[in-house]
Amino acid sequence: MSKLHVNLVSDTATQPTPAMLEAMFSAPVGDDVFRQDPTVNELEAFAAQLMGMESALFCPSGTMTNQLAIKVHTRPLDEVICEEKSHIYQYEGGVYSLISNVSLNTLHGERGKLLPGQISAAVKPEYDWLPRTRLVVLENTCNKGGGSIYTLAEAETLVKEARQHGLGVHLDGARLFNALAETGESPADWGKLFDTVSICLSKGLGAPVGSLLLGPETEIREARRYRKVLGGGMRQAGYLAAAGLYALRHHRDRLRKDNERARKLAEVVSRQPYVASAEKTESNICIFHLQDRSAETYLRQLSEHGIQATPFGQKTVRFTTHLGVDDRQIDYVIECLPKLAGRNQ
Amino acid sequence: MSKLHVNLVSDTATQPTPAMLEAMFSAPVGDDVFRQDPTVNELEAFAAQLMGMESALFCPSGTMTNQLAIKVHTRPLDEVICEEKSHIYQYEGGVYSLISNVSLNTLHGERGKLLPGQISAAVKPEYDWLPRTRLVVLENTCNKGGGSIYTLAEAETLVKEARQHGLGVHLDGARLFNALAETGESPADWGKLFDTVSICLSKGLGAPVGSLLLGPETEIREARRYRKVLGGGMRQAGYLAAAGLYALRHHRDRLRKDNERARKLAEVVSRQPYVASAEKTESNICIFHLQDRSAETYLRQLSEHGIQATPFGQKTVRFTTHLGVDDRQIDYVIECLPKLAGRNQ
Amino acid sequence: MSKLHVNLVSDTATQPTPAMLEAMFSAPVGDDVFRQDPTVNELEAFAAQLMGMESALFCPSGTMTNQLAIKVHTRPLDEVICEEKSHIYQYEGGVYSLISNVSLNTLHGERGKLLPGQISAAVKPEYDWLPRTRLVVLENTCNKGGGSIYTLAEAETLVKEARQHGLGVHLDGARLFNALAETGESPADWGKLFDTVSICLSKGLGAPVGSLLLGPETEIREARRYRKVLGGGMRQAGYLAAAGLYALRHHRDRLRKDNERARKLAEVVSRQPYVASAEKTESNICIFHLQDRSAETYLRQLSEHGIQATPFGQKTVRFTTHLGVDDRQIDYVIECLPKLAGRNQ
Amino acid sequence: MSKLHVNLVSDTATQPTPAMLEAMFSAPVGDDVFRQDPTVNELEAFAAQLMGMESALFCPSGTMTNQLAIKVHTRPLDEVICEEKSHIYQYEGGVYSLISNVSLNTLHGERGKLLPGQISAAVKPEYDWLPRTRLVVLENTCNKGGGSIYTLAEAETLVKEARQHGLGVHLDGARLFNALAETGESPADWGKLFDTVSICLSKGLGAPVGSLLLGPETEIREARRYRKVLGGGMRQAGYLAAAGLYALRHHRDRLRKDNERARKLAEVVSRQPYVASAEKTESNICIFHLQDRSAETYLRQLSEHGIQATPFGQKTVRFTTHLGVDDRQIDYVIECLPKLAGRNQ
Repeated sequence: MSKLHVNLVSDTATQPTPAMLEAMFSAPVGDDVFRQDPTVNELEAFAAQLMGMESALFCPSGTMTNQLAIKVHTRPLDEVICEEKSHIYQYEGGVYSLISNVSLNTLHGERGKLLPGQISAAVKPEYDWLPRTRLVVLENTCNKGGGSIYTLAEAETLVKEARQHGLGVHLDGARLFNALAETGESPADWGKLFDTVSICLSKGLGAPVGSLLLGPETEIREARRYRKVLGGGMRQAGYLAAAGLYALRHHRDRLRKDNERARKLAEVVSRQPYVASAEKTESNICIFHLQDRSAETYLRQLSEHGIQATPFGQKTVRFTTHLGVDDRQIDYVIECLPKLAGRNQ
Repeated sequence: MSKLHVNLVSDTATQPTPAMLEAMFSAPVGDDVFRQDPTVNELEAFAAQLMGMESALFCPSGTMTNQLAIKVHTRPLDEVICEEKSHIYQYEGGVYSLISNVSLNTLHGERGKLLPGQISAAVKPEYDWLPRTRLVVLENTCNKGGGSIYTLAEAETLVKEARQHGLGVHLDGARLFNALAETGESPADWGKLFDTVSICLSKGLGAPVGSLLLGPETEIREARRYRKVLGGGMRQAGYLAAAGLYALRHHRDRLRKDNERARKLAEVVSRQPYVASAEKTESNICIFHLQDRSAETYLRQLSEHGIQATPFGQKTVRFTTHLGVDDRQIDYVIECLPKLAGRNQ
Repeated sequence: MSKLHVNLVSDTATQPTPAMLEAMFSAPVGDDVFRQDPTVNELEAFAAQLMGMESALFCPSGTMTNQLAIKVHTRPLDEVICEEKSHIYQYEGGVYSLISNVSLNTLHGERGKLLPGQISAAVKPEYDWLPRTRLVVLENTCNKGGGSIYTLAEAETLVKEARQHGLGVHLDGARLFNALAETGESPADWGKLFDTVSICLSKGLGAPVGSLLLGPETEIREARRYRKVLGGGMRQAGYLAAAGLYALRHHRDRLRKDNERARKLAEVVSRQPYVASAEKTESNICIFHLQDRSAETYLRQLSEHGIQATPFGQKTVRFTTHLGVDDRQIDYVIECLPKLAGRNQ
Repeated sequence: MSKLHVNLVSDTATQPTPAMLEAMFSAPVGDDVFRQDPTVNELEAFAAQLMGMESALFCPSGTMTNQLAIKVHTRPLDEVICEEKSHIYQYEGGVYSLISNVSLNTLHGERGKLLPGQISAAVKPEYDWLPRTRLVVLENTCNKGGGSIYTLAEAETLVKEARQHGLGVHLDGARLFNALAETGESPADWGKLFDTVSICLSKGLGAPVGSLLLGPETEIREARRYRKVLGGGMRQAGYLAAAGLYALRHHRDRLRKDNERARKLAEVVSRQPYVASAEKTESNICIFHLQDRSAETYLRQLSEHGIQATPFGQKTVRFTTHLGVDDRQIDYVIECLPKLAGRNQ
């Protein structure tokens, strides 16, 4: 096969399809700060309905939806329980300390997932010198956990545990639809389980910009206020919302293809002699550990073949599949991988 | 003239022109979080060049650019000097206390403008129980000051005063180009005067979304980090940036028309028997005070004629002209205004 | 009269009387972080009873009691209304922005006192871009207002106004007993009027260290938690509390003498040719403005006579009377003041 | 032996000796907010000299000294590395998020001590979405680590590692003198190693109230300002400082006795049939795990014998020795312990 360019860096890198672009182009818009953008309103209503939740809020990023969730759930000096591989701990700059004045209790679970009993054991008693445990955040799929998937049953067990202690529960569902494409579970069943849910439109779903925060009317109302003062209030945001709406309508099912392709990659990867081990690949993320060279070296070698990926540690690499990677490209990568054997520098 | 719909509410309400829309949807895009969106990069470079400044950062809103400016200029418990009509005090939810842990020293100047000598008088000495004066923020034009304009000479005097005390200077230039369209001053002369400048693309310039923060490389670098963690990092933001780029290239001159129309309105407004007084109108904002009825009543009466405007106090009303209001609509409003005389409820 | 040393700098500078020292010495103590210090407990109970309030909390300083009050009354991005001469604005480093993430709405009243109607006019409507008005803080007496006194009737009017808007009310009563010594009003009438009250033990009352925050059980409980994490939890604090208890029992009445002495000073001061004007002196603080020289010069001249006072502006000086200043010293100062005439440098 | 009352709860519970009390009440005092308290000044100078450091600051508590250290070392969104058993993580309410807007990176070391290599592995690269690693905090002895001791050599290794990454180093030396009493190391060697050091006067040293922050003049100057606005500025604090000064002069050596007594207890404890295991006891803290009953039950049983201790987990108990526990009391406890065998409820 002749050399192809394959971007396995991130599912945030997708370009809109022509049909999505067409939807964007023709969207009616207004000033969303005054809630007068019909397309944003439509997106928020559609997503709320889809997730079986009262209300939704369109935001510039998933960091904003997660941080707004933490803000509306907590008061200063509360504590948030999450797995130590969580996005809110790993990739949001510790900004919960600034926006919400809360601290995290990062538990060591399994591939980014909390285990039954961990929440109960982590809840703090009420002393003047302890933060107040207030919120649990689960992430599905968990990026740093290798795209690991919670089943609904697993999530229900954890949420039940959290509720026994009076804790709020937020789902960082940036890649929730990658999980649901696999399990076939209903979005609304997930929406009903949690107090608030974040969904990212600009990852596998393929929209250019934006995430949604979903939850009860009151909390979303408050999140809307914080979105404004944190600088996330956009005017004619309908152009972006139109892409998100298109994605939610048309791109959810195709995530199964991304997952399959990642698994296909993972299978081949794990057989390479230079690979020490590969994480279990359940969705569109394939993480593996190199035996004989650094991630930096390996990424350079891949790039000679036109393949781009992400370093995920000293000797660890991440491949991510998405809208911009098709079967032909996957076959190409699979063809290239064995060629890198023995090139340990 | 038959009934028209005229939106004088805000210059944030504009819809893109067909040419702007065309520019948006033909823009090449990439992942701006990794600085790989060519259109965002082009916009930032173009704006920096235009303003004679080192660097620029595209953000979802003017609240974000202003708050990032405050953040990079200050440390917690610093104090920021501004006129009491400033946007950062009046319209940003007091969020400087949360994002930057600073307080404001709001001075009573004239129509939103600080007067010579006020800065020096406000600088605090160094005591353990006093915040540290660190930054002065000027706003040009000042919305709440009735769209008042600083001349470059006036700004130079104030900046010189600030620098004598070692203070940083930020320009909230959300509507700077409305001022420059009037004075004919050069953007770069303004850019060189200040440490950082905010410019809004989605007000009179007519882009759907976005503002720019301009400043030295180091400060903009730090602002970029804060933009990310505050949730303002957008992925394929080039669609929005393309509109801003088009606006900066093609819509700056036409702001003179908006200003003229607002002045024309102001002249007629001030002659109405039900108007107690009108603020001096220098740019695209006309603020006036009613004699015989509440703003609420008057706005209802205007809306019967298809005219929408903004309440700006108990008996105060604001008209704003913009891209979406043409001469015919202005004439229509002028025709309607006398009809509201004598209808004091 | 031969040269005396007279400290008119601040009523924080007092030394305990022998009887107070004796009370400190013999106090039983325990670990107050666990609420096991009997003397602290006795002080808190006594003060609550005296003020007709549920609960009290002993803190290292008045800044802490005021800031704890703001914390328990507000949530981030709330707004606090106060007069612009208030201690919380003037002398607490803007730390409300850091501890509580709130902003102040500083109103221009009269000698540090809010005027009827000002609170209602300042309450903000509910918009996403506005802070939420939540709390009013009154200060009695107001230091920067020249020791100005609110009568109970005046305070009642303002509190009623605040309550009509659902606002909380905190009294910064650092020098409340200087006011009550003058008006003869009952502490409990003041305590019942406000949600929370701060009282300073280490100003005119003469204890070495400490302030009390009083309020409902729930709020004081929460303040206790914040006291701990902000670093104000002291172990065997009973030694300090004993002095405060002694002061509340034995030193309240004698504040009338301090007030009289300050008024006597004020009368003489106002007659000096080098004094442009003197603020009305209602309690133990006398503020006056120099005509022909700077405060710095004047303070140097005073110090040649052994008299120390405080600069309160470029040409403004403050005299404060307290436990450590007796009639003989006042007579001595009065004898000295005319000698400084004509020495304008 | 007849029933005794023995308080093994905490070394914060001590009462001053008669000589310490005498020192307190003969101390000259002044207004420390203006740095005019001679005894506070003497304490700060003495401690700085003792520790071989430039400057010292007397504070109401160890929580305040630690939090001031974090504040002066960091900027918002920085990250602090510490062992997961550290006081700053376990017992300070997560207040670093509020006061400093920083997050912690809590590493799993050994008995509260970081291990060589852990710091280097934890330092984060510079990305917009990552907090900036800025400070390492070590704790010696570590309370939650069972009073574990770092040797100077161990600390030097870790500090060297931190400095290679340009990190600041703070020592939470609340119980440093318990360690030094054991190792015989010089305080100044420890002081010179770290940027800042906290020392607690009200634990084993036996003073009623207070801790010291030591460090370079500039940092301590800034900490002084923060102490004031956080409410830790005390007026005539000399009474408390006098006790601290006395303690530093006369009580450091006697900590060896506390350590010995705790070890003696630990030895007996570990032989009890109802004890599953006891942590290694290096200083004045003895932590052990019960086999057959809950901590709650066991503490109740102890209290029947007049012995008080602290629950330290579901089945874990802490004994702490201090100034208020002598050999006779230790013998009494040792006599009582076997009597609790077999009483598993």
